[in-house]
Amino acid sequence: MSRFTLDCFLESGNAYKAALMLELSGADWEARRVAFFTGQTRSPEFREMNIMGEVPVLTDHRPGGDLVLSQSGAILDYLAGVLGQFGATDESERSEILRWLLWDNHKLTSYTATYRFMNHFQNKTDDPVTQFFHARAVGAWKVLDAHLASRDFVVADRPTIADLSLCGYLFWPGQIGMDPDAYPNIQAWLGRIAALPRYKRPEDLMPSGMDPATATA
Amino acid sequence: MSRFTLDCFLESGNAYKAALMLELSGADWEARRVAFFTGQTRSPEFREMNIMGEVPVLTDHRPGGDLVLSQSGAILDYLAGVLGQFGATDESERSEILRWLLWDNHKLTSYTATYRFMNHFQNKTDDPVTQFFHARAVGAWKVLDAHLASRDFVVADRPTIADLSLCGYLFWPGQIGMDPDAYPNIQAWLGRIAALPRYKRPEDLMPSGMDPATATA
Repeated sequence: MSRFTLDCFLESGNAYKAALMLELSGADWEARRVAFFTGQTRSPEFREMNIMGEVPVLTDHRPGGDLVLSQSGAILDYLAGVLGQFGATDESERSEILRWLLWDNHKLTSYTATYRFMNHFQNKTDDPVTQFFHARAVGAWKVLDAHLASRDFVVADRPTIADLSLCGYLFWPGQIGMDPDAYPNIQAWLGRIAALPRYKRPEDLMPSGMDPATATA
Repeated sequence: MSRFTLDCFLESGNAYKAALMLELSGADWEARRVAFFTGQTRSPEFREMNIMGEVPVLTDHRPGGDLVLSQSGAILDYLAGVLGQFGATDESERSEILRWLLWDNHKLTSYTATYRFMNHFQNKTDDPVTQFFHARAVGAWKVLDAHLASRDFVVADRPTIADLSLCGYLFWPGQIGMDPDAYPNIQAWLGRIAALPRYKRPEDLMPSGMDPATATA
C-alpha cells in the first residue's frame, strides 16, 4: 500500500492542488476515485469520513495509525510539514502563505470553481448567478495578476504551497471563462509551475469522477 | 500607542473575528476605522497596504519593526502564536484548526457574508443571486450544526481560533436569515462563546464603517 491515499477525481481543482503537491514532492501516493457526479460526496458513508462532504481527503497511513484530513489548504500545510517541501522557511513566510491560502479559498477558488461548475458542467452560462460568480472571479484574478507583476511566485522566490493552491483551477482557462491574454502575469506564473520537475496535468494524476456511461456519451 | 492596530469596521464579521480574538486575549489593541461603505478598501492607498482590498488588517508594532497582515484566519493564527491563547496544543489540533478555518472561509463565511450584504445592506433579498447564497449558507450551517451535536467547541474541549472564526457572522441571525431554532447546536455553542470572559459584541469593539450622514439617516 502507498503511504498516502487521496480521495479525489480529476474534475476537482481542489483535489488537483493536493495531487499536484504529492506528485511534485515525489511522494508515494495513490488516487482513490470519488464518484462525485453521481453523489458520492453527499452520501452518509462519505460524510462519515468527512462531515464537510467534499474532496480532497488525504489519508496518511502512518506507522502510529492513519491520519485522515480534508480541506486542500490543510492538506497542503500538512504535507509541507511531513514531506519537507514547498513550505515556509520562517514565521513571516508562514503567515504570508496562510494568508494567500485563505484568500484563495475565500475569493479566488470559491468564485472560480462555482462559476466553472455552473458554466462548464451545468451549462448555465447565462444564468445571473453564474454571471455574478464570474464577475467576482474576475476581480480575484485581477488581484492575483497585479500581485504577480513583480514576482515569480506568490510568496517567496521559489514555489510554495500558496502557488499550488492558487493554480488549482487556472489551468482550465476555457472552462473558467478566463481570457489568458488579459492576465499576462498569471500566464507567465502558470508556465513556471508547469515547468517544475514532475509536473502533471489533472487528467494524468487522477481518475474521472463522472459516471463512465455519461462521460463517454 | 497600543501594541496592535486593527483596521476594521463593526459591520464586518471578518473584522470581528480578529477584534474578538484581541479582546478575549486581553491584548493591548486599538481599532482604526475603515470607511468601507464609501469605498476606502478599494482605494489605491488601502490597496498599497493590502492588495486584497479587504479588512481586517492587523499591524503589530513590534520592537523589530511593524508586521502588517491581512486575512482574518492568518491574523488569528498569528495572534494565537504571539499571545499564546486559543491556539493548538499539538500537530493534530493544528491541522484540524486550519481545516475549519479554511472551511469557514470557503463555505460558511463566504456564503453567509455575501448573503448578508445583499439581503441586509443592499435590500436585494429576492434577487436570485441572493437566494443562491442563502441556500449555500444553509448547507454550511447544517454541517456546522451536525458537527456541534456532540461537542462544546469545534476542534477541542476548549475554544480555539476555529470557533472565533466560524462565529464571526452568526451573532446576527436576522441579518443572515438564520432561524436560530433550526440550529440548536449552533445556538448553544454561540452561548458558550458569549459567556467567555471579556466577550463583547461587534458594536462594543469597533467603529462603524458607514458614512455618519447615511448611518443616522
